Amino acid sequence: MNKIEHIGIAVKNLESSIDLYQRLLNTDCYKTELVATENVNTAFFKTGENKIELLSATSLDSTVAKFLEKKGEGIHHIAFLVDDILVEMERLKSEGFTLLNDAPKRGADNKMICFVHPKDANGVLIELCQEIKWV
Amino acid sequence: MNKIEHIGIAVKNLESSIDLYQRLLNTDCYKTELVATENVNTAFFKTGENKIELLSATSLDSTVAKFLEKKGEGIHHIAFLVDDILVEMERLKSEGFTLLNDAPKRGADNKMICFVHPKDANGVLIELCQEIKWV
Repeated sequence: MNKIEHIGIAVKNLESSIDLYQRLLNTDCYKTELVATENVNTAFFKTGENKIELLSATSLDSTVAKFLEKKGEGIHHIAFLVDDILVEMERLKSEGFTLLNDAPKRGADNKMICFVHPKDANGVLIELCQEIKWV
Repeated sequence: MNKIEHIGIAVKNLESSIDLYQRLLNTDCYKTELVATENVNTAFFKTGENKIELLSATSLDSTVAKFLEKKGEGIHHIAFLVDDILVEMERLKSEGFTLLNDAPKRGADNKMICFVHPKDANGVLIELCQEIKWV
């Protein structure tokens, strides 16, 4: 776990939330990205070496839609940057943590990602992410 | 808002959560601190330029105890480091955000702090913090 890469925040309305976070953080949203495989629309802000990622659902099947229905708007996950996601997944499994996906999957922002079950981390959904390098 | 200073996570049992986060983050807790005025015990971990702060209640009156009762364990707040907390409080008020304290108050880790109401930030409790400099 090198550092916090981003904090994901589930919101109902992406457009009004972008405006709100621009005023809150006093910085502009620098990117929006649709992640079709996860049925989410995302918007990114830079703050220091971290990012804030706003997440809105594009379908009722989306895990973000289910989160909003169950818990309402708020922090959805903390994502940690790792050097080698496969090594980190093995390390966490050996420490007894439950992973939500067996293999890394494609996430937003050119990353391969894997989630750790929140029941193992005091209710916090942890994401591991590793930058995809195209060679 | 310079950067994320720390993420606060509300936990029921500080001791077992310290063990858990040491294994999750693969780094040792470097400090624990009792904040008597807030009725919380805290434990800190470094990750990149940020910190993770675990929070447990020391009394039923504690805001952390009320949070745990209402929402269960999980992320309690995101704290942003600012250069001048009074200037940032004024800026946010002028942008229409509601502050939870009129004047900065003493927090953990040698900081003056102020909270922004979560209703104004998609359910996220935002803390402003500024390092106290002793001259």
